[in-house]
Amino acid sequence: MLIEKTVSGFIEELASNSPAPGGGSAAALAGSLGAALSIMVCNFTEGKPKFSGVQDEISQIKQKGLALKNDLTDYIDADTNAFDEVMKAYKLPKDTDAEKTLRSEKIQEATIGASLPPLKVAESCVEVLKLSLRVLTIGNPNTACDAAVSGVTAYAGFQGAIFNVKINLSSIKDETFLQNVRDKILVLQDEADKTNQLILDRAREVIG
Amino acid sequence: MLIEKTVSGFIEELASNSPAPGGGSAAALAGSLGAALSIMVCNFTEGKPKFSGVQDEISQIKQKGLALKNDLTDYIDADTNAFDEVMKAYKLPKDTDAEKTLRSEKIQEATIGASLPPLKVAESCVEVLKLSLRVLTIGNPNTACDAAVSGVTAYAGFQGAIFNVKINLSSIKDETFLQNVRDKILVLQDEADKTNQLILDRAREVIG
Repeated sequence: MLIEKTVSGFIEELASNSPAPGGGSAAALAGSLGAALSIMVCNFTEGKPKFSGVQDEISQIKQKGLALKNDLTDYIDADTNAFDEVMKAYKLPKDTDAEKTLRSEKIQEATIGASLPPLKVAESCVEVLKLSLRVLTIGNPNTACDAAVSGVTAYAGFQGAIFNVKINLSSIKDETFLQNVRDKILVLQDEADKTNQLILDRAREVIG
Repeated sequence: MLIEKTVSGFIEELASNSPAPGGGSAAALAGSLGAALSIMVCNFTEGKPKFSGVQDEISQIKQKGLALKNDLTDYIDADTNAFDEVMKAYKLPKDTDAEKTLRSEKIQEATIGASLPPLKVAESCVEVLKLSLRVLTIGNPNTACDAAVSGVTAYAGFQGAIFNVKINLSSIKDETFLQNVRDKILVLQDEADKTNQLILDRAREVIG
């Protein structure tokens, strides 16, 4: 598993001349860093009398953050595994017409399968962005910088995941699936861009 | 060392209730992912007859990318170590006037020291952004998505590092140092924003 590699080993693997892991797994990792940093801010706010007015919300944010961190960390491997299925489908025999048809179907199936992990990563990163904005606003100001980095890493995870969804869409033929995903991307992109801008505005106020 | 932890272990450590690692190390890691992905694109372009016209530049980009990846990976730990020095300085005794003066000096020294790793990370991320833009433009189009994710992770690394420089500046008293760093930030921010925008424009053309 990729997440059991060392940090330096993962970076080496990413840089290597093998097609996976690539940008999809890196995007999931960036999102995981964002989730982890929002949790960190909760940990520095939780139980402190100074922030007694926000304890309930902080506790809810922490629970959501933990679930998002776990999901996003799982997607570091899930993205690479889904990509491997596409590579496998392309390697199927194509000597007879029957083989060609089967191969083509399997490539379609695997490519649709490969578009789902980054779509899920993009959705989770939008949720992380919302948490980043809240912890930057109500969390312990000593960790404002960590909250802001939570935001920028989650936004990078979002953007990277969307690139990966789109690259898969370019080889998918199912028009209904394509339209559904394109509609979803528009909604997510708008939400991500707006939340990211609010985080940057708030960071400028708090950090300078 | 943080980079010898597993990826999942690093994420846990980031989320934990200890002040370090925090956003500074996460920013350095985001930058490392960016450098690694630009190198990956070089590896898929190098030695391919189809891209014979760009082999010299790809080879130069790869060399620069490898150096930046190594530097940024080192800064994952260097950032946390420099932050630990600030924490140590704050824990110095402050019972007598002499102790107070010494403690205050050591805090200033350590805080200046802590602003340097993220400043170096920010500079390196700007260099990674330039490489991302070039590999997205001249590299193997099969890895366009990885080139684009290289860009967004490097930009997140840049923004995160700048937050960390600025938070340190707020407790530094040396006016000459402050002015030098503020001037440097302005130049870097402009370069990073412009290169990031060019990467996003190019990604839209290539990926959709």
